[in-house]
Amino acid sequence: MTSRPRLDRVHVVGTGLIGTSLGIALSRKGVEVTLEDLSPTAVALARDLGAGTPRPPEGPAPDLVVVATPPDVVAGAVLDALERFSAAAVTDVASVKGAILSALHASGADLTRYCGSHPMAGRERSGAISGRADLFEGRAWVVTPTAETDPRVVELLDEVARQVGSVTTRLAPESHDAAVAAVSHVPQVAASLVAARLTDLPDTAVALAGQGLRDVTRIAASEPQLWTQILAGNAGAVRAVLGDLAADLGGLIDALDAFGGDPGADAPGARATLARVIADGNTGHARIPGKHGAGPTAYATVRVLIPDRPGQLGRLFQDIGDEGINIEEFRIDHGLGQAFGLAEIDVLPASAPTLAAALDRRGWRLHD
Amino acid sequence: MTSRPRLDRVHVVGTGLIGTSLGIALSRKGVEVTLEDLSPTAVALARDLGAGTPRPPEGPAPDLVVVATPPDVVAGAVLDALERFSAAAVTDVASVKGAILSALHASGADLTRYCGSHPMAGRERSGAISGRADLFEGRAWVVTPTAETDPRVVELLDEVARQVGSVTTRLAPESHDAAVAAVSHVPQVAASLVAARLTDLPDTAVALAGQGLRDVTRIAASEPQLWTQILAGNAGAVRAVLGDLAADLGGLIDALDAFGGDPGADAPGARATLARVIADGNTGHARIPGKHGAGPTAYATVRVLIPDRPGQLGRLFQDIGDEGINIEEFRIDHGLGQAFGLAEIDVLPASAPTLAAALDRRGWRLHD
Repeated sequence: MTSRPRLDRVHVVGTGLIGTSLGIALSRKGVEVTLEDLSPTAVALARDLGAGTPRPPEGPAPDLVVVATPPDVVAGAVLDALERFSAAAVTDVASVKGAILSALHASGADLTRYCGSHPMAGRERSGAISGRADLFEGRAWVVTPTAETDPRVVELLDEVARQVGSVTTRLAPESHDAAVAAVSHVPQVAASLVAARLTDLPDTAVALAGQGLRDVTRIAASEPQLWTQILAGNAGAVRAVLGDLAADLGGLIDALDAFGGDPGADAPGARATLARVIADGNTGHARIPGKHGAGPTAYATVRVLIPDRPGQLGRLFQDIGDEGINIEEFRIDHGLGQAFGLAEIDVLPASAPTLAAALDRRGWRLHD
Repeated sequence: MTSRPRLDRVHVVGTGLIGTSLGIALSRKGVEVTLEDLSPTAVALARDLGAGTPRPPEGPAPDLVVVATPPDVVAGAVLDALERFSAAAVTDVASVKGAILSALHASGADLTRYCGSHPMAGRERSGAISGRADLFEGRAWVVTPTAETDPRVVELLDEVARQVGSVTTRLAPESHDAAVAAVSHVPQVAASLVAARLTDLPDTAVALAGQGLRDVTRIAASEPQLWTQILAGNAGAVRAVLGDLAADLGGLIDALDAFGGDPGADAPGARATLARVIADGNTGHARIPGKHGAGPTAYATVRVLIPDRPGQLGRLFQDIGDEGINIEEFRIDHGLGQAFGLAEIDVLPASAPTLAAALDRRGWRLHD
């Protein structure tokens, strides 16, 4: 058993949402956190929120510097930190890794003490004011060491993640960027493109929106400025995935054209193309892990009608809790113009019959 | 005040999910429902489920015939029904309307007694065995009369919808098809295309999946055979929306290419293109109505950490119910490798401070 690396002092560069949240979380764990930001106001706010103290010019050297600036200035801030703190480990927390590493390599700097990382945490709001101690709890924190990275730097990041309730995952920088392109950046683009189609629809058409559309477009409410930086920063990997998507889309459009407006048309191969698009989606969807990072789990779904008045969901969950059954996933779908909601409760398959029988006995109207 | 149209006898052609569910729902309301299907087994099953009785050769004439066959044989079944039941109103329930109407027009038949319709109800499973009385409850039921449709037929459909708990919406057939292309068919395609990108990802990459990806791809689990018929049946309208989407996508890909792998590249106009894709998505997303078919409502979100053991959600909802606050939307997000879930509770903005204060007082850990 190796001893944990020493994590007494952390210096945070950039007191936005991530930097401030990290400062608060580490300070609560007894780590001495110092802060800096181009904006004196942002540093003062982060300090007032308990994220740490502004770093004095001749303060003691930090064990770790965390660069949490906007993506477009990260590389410069990392180089600056490596130079100013000649013994400290340095990381950054940007959501794209390859471009930063390229810029660092181009500088010719010794990168032994640097390891990029990406806590998979965020929220819709930004800035120090949105900082919170539990931002990282239960989230993955990807670390992206290279061949030149000192292993002790990686161990230090493991310890930081552990302190704030995260779990580290090691990935090569290019693997990280390819992964987030597929699981985060391309879904964002798809949601935005689908939502944009609603802009010019008549109200009567938009009124037919169901839960499917709501799910597909939920993240279309994201912030343009931040996403412009993310997409630009990961342009290569996002472009590669979007290129594959566009090729599939082109094939689908050709197949639809082949019908010439007649669903009964001969259209050789067109139906097979349509079916393959949906079937390939089935295959990819089945790979998405269940909660807690475990492998994908097939849950059984119990459906219950919920009267739309206060306390009914409380009664439902109370009843489920009384049966000692854990809910894996929960969704609620409100229909059009009616005072009913349809709740879908996913549980482990072995629990579903018990749950259904219990809810029926307790007077709930089940959808089978 | 006009009297309600007479709805004593309904004949259902095609005892799959929709036909059987409708038969069960109407039978429970005292309507005499008769059934037919190419498959004697399917009819027998629907009868046993309480959907009605097989129609005897010389039975009394129905007031309404509902054609609920697979989409590709609907037009023929409608013509057959118009001929066999010379006084009955006839509708179909297929999810695409224009192609059916074209086929009917091409036959030269008198379509006075026909009105297409589309109950916006369904589920992942199909067949009589999946039928249920409450399938239509709270769902929109689109009716698509034309200039030649007898208004009494539309009134009869209003009455059927009312009996099974639906609300009718009148749309021209082509407006219906354009609407469902944008709010249902294209979102399905987008979800499938995004999910298909996961097929060849390494496990470590798929493991980074978050709630955004889960939401975008949830409907990617849909059935290929049914969706092939739907997409083929609405090829023109789906193609039009996908064409617009592909054009936006092409512009986005060009913008990403303009960076040449360098996020700091000059790339004139590229950042503006990226920002516009996200901003247009914002605009479209804001048009999606809230529950109950009302206009989009801005809810306030209260975030709470949920310990991952039975009964905690019950306790939460009990507490919310005790405060007399109604939940508008509810989501739960489980992080990676941790025994916490983050619940997001959307409530009317005026209720949010009360709810947050109450939950804090009751010992819940709030995310602000």
